[in-house]
Amino acid sequence: MHSPDIHVRSVGTALPGPAIDNATLARRFHMPAAWEQWIDVFVGTGSRHFARDLDTGEVRYTPTDLGETAGRRALEASGLGPADVDLMVLGTSSPERLMPATVNMIADRLGIDGIPAYQLQSGCTGAFQALDVAHQMLRSGRHRTALVLGTESCAKHLDLDVDVAALPPAEQINGVLFGDGAGAAVLSTNAGPDSVVVRDTFVRLVGLNRPPGQVVEWFGRADLGVKGPAVVEDYKEIERSVPLLAADALRELLEHAGWKDDELDYLLPPQLSGVMTARITEHLDAPGAQEVSCVRELGNTGNALPFFQLERLLPRLITGDRAAAVSVESSKWITAGLALEKV
Amino acid sequence: MHSPDIHVRSVGTALPGPAIDNATLARRFHMPAAWEQWIDVFVGTGSRHFARDLDTGEVRYTPTDLGETAGRRALEASGLGPADVDLMVLGTSSPERLMPATVNMIADRLGIDGIPAYQLQSGCTGAFQALDVAHQMLRSGRHRTALVLGTESCAKHLDLDVDVAALPPAEQINGVLFGDGAGAAVLSTNAGPDSVVVRDTFVRLVGLNRPPGQVVEWFGRADLGVKGPAVVEDYKEIERSVPLLAADALRELLEHAGWKDDELDYLLPPQLSGVMTARITEHLDAPGAQEVSCVRELGNTGNALPFFQLERLLPRLITGDRAAAVSVESSKWITAGLALEKV
Repeated sequence: MHSPDIHVRSVGTALPGPAIDNATLARRFHMPAAWEQWIDVFVGTGSRHFARDLDTGEVRYTPTDLGETAGRRALEASGLGPADVDLMVLGTSSPERLMPATVNMIADRLGIDGIPAYQLQSGCTGAFQALDVAHQMLRSGRHRTALVLGTESCAKHLDLDVDVAALPPAEQINGVLFGDGAGAAVLSTNAGPDSVVVRDTFVRLVGLNRPPGQVVEWFGRADLGVKGPAVVEDYKEIERSVPLLAADALRELLEHAGWKDDELDYLLPPQLSGVMTARITEHLDAPGAQEVSCVRELGNTGNALPFFQLERLLPRLITGDRAAAVSVESSKWITAGLALEKV
Repeated sequence: MHSPDIHVRSVGTALPGPAIDNATLARRFHMPAAWEQWIDVFVGTGSRHFARDLDTGEVRYTPTDLGETAGRRALEASGLGPADVDLMVLGTSSPERLMPATVNMIADRLGIDGIPAYQLQSGCTGAFQALDVAHQMLRSGRHRTALVLGTESCAKHLDLDVDVAALPPAEQINGVLFGDGAGAAVLSTNAGPDSVVVRDTFVRLVGLNRPPGQVVEWFGRADLGVKGPAVVEDYKEIERSVPLLAADALRELLEHAGWKDDELDYLLPPQLSGVMTARITEHLDAPGAQEVSCVRELGNTGNALPFFQLERLLPRLITGDRAAAVSVESSKWITAGLALEKV
């Protein structure tokens, strides 16, 4: 069976408000200067953007706002219009509501209608999940142009009244690790002037018999009395497992694409935090590949993050260049990969 | 491009606890007998199952529990095992948590690993969305066997301490309209002994410039103080629009399948409530087709519901029989369809 090549025609992103650096965070939460250094040394994230105003608590950008902006920018850069889009796939761990799905509200804002629009509930591998579903659905022949998105907002989790000093470090870290944002890409069966061919996408659940490394709860009106933190991570297990799983993912991706590790020009590694990304990249066998990372400036923006990496990558590619992106989700343990080639 | 036929090999379902009839509901919420009659006449739903024990409030079945049981039953009926499954797609409007995605927890329980598992955030058309994604991904050639699921649980929304008598009717109805449950189907590129061929699946967003007909909120730790109901429906607009959209969906499905309306043997209409389903079915032009409905016994089980209809349908089909299922989601307005033929 012959399937068409799928092209990434363009990428767009959106960030809410100004960059919040560690000094600003420390002041806002009445933390000492040592805390700022702790973030720098142990997390390695220098700044991030938040959808909520840290002073007033107001939600200034909804996931729909951010997705709309990223989607509009990606569409404008693609040379295609809303009427060309015949498939939408959004990945997010922080949907605006349970219903309507955020993807449908973004479609409305962009003037897109009459098409299937899918929203994946996903974590760090969510952009890869959305790209994989779009890639497969484009290959099946029913669709020609997909708008793929990732949005993330900590607004509902970020308790501005919390006494940070009283929290254990594992909970303090949640407030400095993550950032808000959105990204989008236009995938098409037709090449654009600057498009890049998707050589492979894969997503692989690898969590059998392993406890989750990350749990994020949601609450309904009936269970508001439930106690305990809503976001829990097993950072020790994440530190131990993610570099190994990222190396597995890169090996698998290269094998699928039929590329040797020294044939890689760019590497887009997982972006959990500045420190973790450095540790992961050490384990990845890609001599000669240039790293494309953005976690130090943006924090971990989850489903949005690979789009920020792609936005930095695409203008640098010249004909023949090969790029590999890999990701690991620690929720129930998922690996994912994306192989791109400029033709 | 030639794509393989995709077969529905089996269906499995799961219901939590005993059926709760209207008399039991009325007693539990200290409502008069007239309320029971109001449910019967204006809603037309006679019973439903709940994941929570109405007396103790205990959550007795999680979405993972329900999905595991439905998935296991579907797998057993398919003649295939967990190792044969190379794709999972789950639709739900009520995931157990934001992360890990419920689909991954169900995979773990069933011993499924090493595959892509996707979870769609979706409402009444969710089963169709999951079937459509699986259908397209099987047609793309990368996969051979998909376990497709739908789960639903009102547990986090169902406030057992509420004074029902003090609620406006539009909020009272939420407590009697919905039911909990899960369903699953095994789709395969290989025919099984009793399999049915998928002639078409489609999902179509039709909500441009229309306000949502249904909104369901989730809450995080940071916004537990937010006021107002978490679940809001515009029942007048739903009553007006859904029959028309269902008729559109049936016409589109018949056109895709190349079937005339009098060539249909079975019709699986939308299952919003007993009364609404009767009203919708009146508008559907399918002379000679037998209706397959279950909403009076199960309530509106959302993403799970079409699997209960399919479970009733499949044993009745003989070679040459044609069945059409249609659905309408009132969140941001989505139509969907599924055409099946016994070969």
